[in-house]
Amino acid sequence: MSHPEPTPLRRRADRARQVADVLRQQVRDAGYQDGLPGEAELAAEFSVSRNTIREALTTLKTEGLIDRGPRVGTHVVQRKYDHGLDALVGLKETFKDYGEVRNEVRAVISVPAPVAVARRLQLDPGVSVVFIERLRYLGALPLSLDLTYLAPDIGDAVLAHPLETNDVFALIEQETGRRLGSATIALEAVAADPHSAATLQLPSGAPILMLERLTTLDDGRPVDLEYIRLRGDRITMRGNLLRSDS
Amino acid sequence: MSHPEPTPLRRRADRARQVADVLRQQVRDAGYQDGLPGEAELAAEFSVSRNTIREALTTLKTEGLIDRGPRVGTHVVQRKYDHGLDALVGLKETFKDYGEVRNEVRAVISVPAPVAVARRLQLDPGVSVVFIERLRYLGALPLSLDLTYLAPDIGDAVLAHPLETNDVFALIEQETGRRLGSATIALEAVAADPHSAATLQLPSGAPILMLERLTTLDDGRPVDLEYIRLRGDRITMRGNLLRSDS
Repeated sequence: MSHPEPTPLRRRADRARQVADVLRQQVRDAGYQDGLPGEAELAAEFSVSRNTIREALTTLKTEGLIDRGPRVGTHVVQRKYDHGLDALVGLKETFKDYGEVRNEVRAVISVPAPVAVARRLQLDPGVSVVFIERLRYLGALPLSLDLTYLAPDIGDAVLAHPLETNDVFALIEQETGRRLGSATIALEAVAADPHSAATLQLPSGAPILMLERLTTLDDGRPVDLEYIRLRGDRITMRGNLLRSDS
Repeated sequence: MSHPEPTPLRRRADRARQVADVLRQQVRDAGYQDGLPGEAELAAEFSVSRNTIREALTTLKTEGLIDRGPRVGTHVVQRKYDHGLDALVGLKETFKDYGEVRNEVRAVISVPAPVAVARRLQLDPGVSVVFIERLRYLGALPLSLDLTYLAPDIGDAVLAHPLETNDVFALIEQETGRRLGSATIALEAVAADPHSAATLQLPSGAPILMLERLTTLDDGRPVDLEYIRLRGDRITMRGNLLRSDS
């Protein structure tokens, strides 16, 4: 064992980040229904000073995960919901154990497919596609803003059903009699523009997960292209990776 | 076909978001080495007004993706790099086609495992683990800040090698003679705290992808727990989802 020289002086901010990352996970796993342990206890657990613990807790408070008060201690204020990266499921299906997903349908329009949309749905540019915009709530909480482009025949069939209470995925399978096959996704962290932020009841510039998802039927035909903004303070994407066989 | 009444008046901000999302993808796919098409052309393509196009371009400019000038037109300023969600590969392996990944090793320390770290690595709390902090560059560009906890025997073996130029994943496989098996990941969008932002050369509060990853060997033993901050303006996570067989 030949350790390189450890960095002799780690700044408090570095140690605080280190503690905050583990605490973030611990808050999620332990729940801490009755509040977090006190500063002295946390300082002992992490082998750092109380000042470092305070700085770590400030980070988690700024993220909106916990709240702190001089007499009430530190408690968890925000629940994050898990969204699976592994399976291809709609939001209602995903959150069926947490509560009812309700969709505020903000737009249903036929639009000529822009070039990039047409190419991904394997249509000719300018062909009419069905565009749907939904603000999706779990209970009273807005979770995501979804912009959806559907191939025309799929869109027409889906629109025969109420979109307020159904996942589009479920409707596509029901109407086509086929299973969904797979989806390609792209996931980014972006700052919410002012209008999207207001719609999702977030401060302007708040971090959101931007999910682009192109979904195909099990015969390989792409039918559903979505641009989904998920509230960063409410959603964690979870999945499993396998080492490839290279 | 029974369309519900389309929303009669969609606000310009809604239309601009709709255009921005498709354009974001189009910029990525087309590259637009010689600049984006003019406003009039884009307005025709998206069947919206030039004002709406301008608002969409402002959103993309705020995200740092494009730049605009009165005489120079609109051009792409920022390249985003794809990071695979499907396979379990290190950063150097991931970006081998883009350039050299260099690691600034900011800390290598033995620390008593905090409770949450010990539980995930299946160790007794307080057992010494190896903690490594690296700022990872692609060329001159900082891409991610990685905090890594390694099981003690694995950590000692890994530290026999230079960390500046190697992926920890590759070193683990080399030293153990085993393949990595799988990893569980959690992915969130968070605002960079001031110190993390400065370290990653980002403005304070900038959106980052926070990736937690617990990696096991192919015998199922968890050996490597990482907390990785990826610059939101530089990284896109990509993957494929399959419909589960429920």
